Amino acid sequence: MSNELIKPQTLKGFRDYLPEAMLAREHLMEIARRIYRSYGFSPIDTPALEYAEILLGKGGDESDKQLFRFTDQGDRDVAMRFDLTIPFARFAAQNIGALGTPFKRYHIGTVWRAEKPQKGRYREFMQCDFDSIGTEANASDIETLMVIYDLMEALGFSAFTIRVNHRQLLNGLLDKLGLLEKSTGVLRALDKLPKIGRRMVIDEMTQSVGISAESAEQVLNFAGLSGTPDQILDEVEKLIAGNERGMEGVAKLRELFSVCRQSGLNEQRLALDVSIARGLDYYTGTIYETFLTELPGIGSVCSGGRYDNLAGLFTKEKLPGVGASLGLDRLLAAMEELGLVQNTGIGGQVMIAMFDETRLGDYMRLSRQLRRSGISTEVYPLARKVQKQLQYANRKRFRAAVIAGSQEFERGVWTVKDLESGTQTEVTDAELPAFLHRILSH
Amino acid sequence: MSNELIKPQTLKGFRDYLPEAMLAREHLMEIARRIYRSYGFSPIDTPALEYAEILLGKGGDESDKQLFRFTDQGDRDVAMRFDLTIPFARFAAQNIGALGTPFKRYHIGTVWRAEKPQKGRYREFMQCDFDSIGTEANASDIETLMVIYDLMEALGFSAFTIRVNHRQLLNGLLDKLGLLEKSTGVLRALDKLPKIGRRMVIDEMTQSVGISAESAEQVLNFAGLSGTPDQILDEVEKLIAGNERGMEGVAKLRELFSVCRQSGLNEQRLALDVSIARGLDYYTGTIYETFLTELPGIGSVCSGGRYDNLAGLFTKEKLPGVGASLGLDRLLAAMEELGLVQNTGIGGQVMIAMFDETRLGDYMRLSRQLRRSGISTEVYPLARKVQKQLQYANRKRFRAAVIAGSQEFERGVWTVKDLESGTQTEVTDAELPAFLHRILSH
Repeated sequence: MSNELIKPQTLKGFRDYLPEAMLAREHLMEIARRIYRSYGFSPIDTPALEYAEILLGKGGDESDKQLFRFTDQGDRDVAMRFDLTIPFARFAAQNIGALGTPFKRYHIGTVWRAEKPQKGRYREFMQCDFDSIGTEANASDIETLMVIYDLMEALGFSAFTIRVNHRQLLNGLLDKLGLLEKSTGVLRALDKLPKIGRRMVIDEMTQSVGISAESAEQVLNFAGLSGTPDQILDEVEKLIAGNERGMEGVAKLRELFSVCRQSGLNEQRLALDVSIARGLDYYTGTIYETFLTELPGIGSVCSGGRYDNLAGLFTKEKLPGVGASLGLDRLLAAMEELGLVQNTGIGGQVMIAMFDETRLGDYMRLSRQLRRSGISTEVYPLARKVQKQLQYANRKRFRAAVIAGSQEFERGVWTVKDLESGTQTEVTDAELPAFLHRILSH
Repeated sequence: MSNELIKPQTLKGFRDYLPEAMLAREHLMEIARRIYRSYGFSPIDTPALEYAEILLGKGGDESDKQLFRFTDQGDRDVAMRFDLTIPFARFAAQNIGALGTPFKRYHIGTVWRAEKPQKGRYREFMQCDFDSIGTEANASDIETLMVIYDLMEALGFSAFTIRVNHRQLLNGLLDKLGLLEKSTGVLRALDKLPKIGRRMVIDEMTQSVGISAESAEQVLNFAGLSGTPDQILDEVEKLIAGNERGMEGVAKLRELFSVCRQSGLNEQRLALDVSIARGLDYYTGTIYETFLTELPGIGSVCSGGRYDNLAGLFTKEKLPGVGASLGLDRLLAAMEELGLVQNTGIGGQVMIAMFDETRLGDYMRLSRQLRRSGISTEVYPLARKVQKQLQYANRKRFRAAVIAGSQEFERGVWTVKDLESGTQTEVTDAELPAFLHRILSH
């Protein structure tokens, strides 16, 4: 064997998670799981590898999806999943008979995309989706919004807005204007409004999409409606009066905002934004986006909506649904920026310093006693200089160190060093757990 | 687009996790995380894809490792990780300078092997490892055993044995017999003892390995030592007296069992088994295996040990360590068989039935009130027949249903149906959370 070392490196676009980043990620996922479960969503998982045919769908443009795709040992054309939606569609087509509807699932999983890596964009990242399928009930749409609301609160965000829209509103207007068949082009142009401005959107609508200047004006006036949800819906009603599908959307949104009010959600955190035009090729009813007031530039941290049919590629059973996806990386970046990441250290809470290796049994017995009382505790493994041991404790951000040498053992006490204040106190065995709990609660 | 459906199917050797299986898996991982953290281990993650060169190591035999290996879009030779040990070695070589030692990490992650699928063997599965690196202290070995012990207890197992051995014991004997250079062959033969019996092991040692019949007898007598750890160690001492490395191993095991006794571990659950010869090419000190008394056939559910140098392929820095790996799939199978899987249902705890869709605001308000009091609650999304709704509640194993139609709303009460006993009780709004908590605690 040669003595040459293999260079330790990760692939371009991939990264290691060190303890600090990983603890923040685990914290976020724990909260997401708790909220999802509190609403009766249950977890599923699907394989990282699927038949490429399944992930590509029909007429799938591979370059769009930037698959990691290869031929396996059994000569199968396989690929790594690039999102959790298509695997869920495949999963539902196979299992919905046994599971029954409505079916509510969450799925937290890694996905891979062979995209060009950029700042903050990786080839491997996690998604965190939840969906209710098999029902068209507006109750499920409202519940979806409530899950997002509770998630944001549980993560510690106080200033956020969930913007809601309903695809049938603008479609109602376009229908009235006789432009329903041009809706994709119109919506695509409208989606650029924040970036390119009113003037250029009108140009695109008239020149590329081919609608009249008058119609374009009407669409932009519609998209510019502002006020409380009820005020906007009153205006929308006037504009689309007589259009049944549009009025149905209005009624659903009225119910949504009314139920949220009754249920005690803070109305300041909800908004009706009739200009949202994203998810054009996918969402067919409610649409949600979530923005952080303090970090608007970060974009939506949780988006979703209603769709007509989840698994049409795989089954004839029609599966309507509604759901949303948490942007884990964006949320983590935001939580860090806003100081919401729990900073409890990357180790335990209490370190027991090692002075006398022949006393290992005493140190270990104490560590077990503290763990039983709910304190995560680490025994430093060897009798190095106390300065070295305290450096280690500080690096891992332990909150306190318990110290005992021959003097302490003789007198039957422990010395507790508060690693924030630096104060030292002698405490007896029996008092120790309560004493440490007091330090930890500060 | 053609109307032909794509057949929904998973790849051979891969599987979906449905809610019930996934909840059990999440439960197990939550407990593992809690125990690891209580000892000051912190989480890391590494990419699913690595340079193939890194995973194969030097002179790596690809067929041994059965990699999913391919060439990516950037013409790199890449592969999916087949364990968490080699990625940890690569990770440590890159990051240990910044992290410092001792470094204690856990890693719960998916790995992939292109093996022939068999019953209970998949091409995708999870591993759950923890390790302390950068120290040779026996305290870390003892801590590793304690983590395994606490994990088994926390998972609900009461009858288990952690079998301990130390590589230096048998090596000490072989050294005394002048057979140290044949140790790999001897250990490999010894490893077959439970399967092929004493006679054939001796044959293999004398014929294939090439040691004398007398030496083979001595090795087998050594491996057959039984009794309490202290009794066995007394016998071992006699056999290897004068061999320094061997006596060092004896001293370390004496300390291990003594510290465990002092720390209050149940000695019935610990055993010294000098016949364990697994991990030949890897472990150099302590070796651990964990067996379930009620399910011996399932094999070891948690194995590990000490190694001299984790990352020699990637760095000149010597990183000794000790750790173990939880066999998630085996544990889940065992927990299911022994009835230890939490059977709290795959949905929430309480379902609010929907009688009157115009009352959605009331139902939703109540659901939020219950969730705030810690009860996971689901509102059935539409006013179907009550029988249908209760079927759904039973399928998801809700514990209670809250029912309210016009009568109840008029009188300001809720009807609570205990879905186990079938009894119905009328409860006021204010009393409801406490009443439901009482049902849930039964």
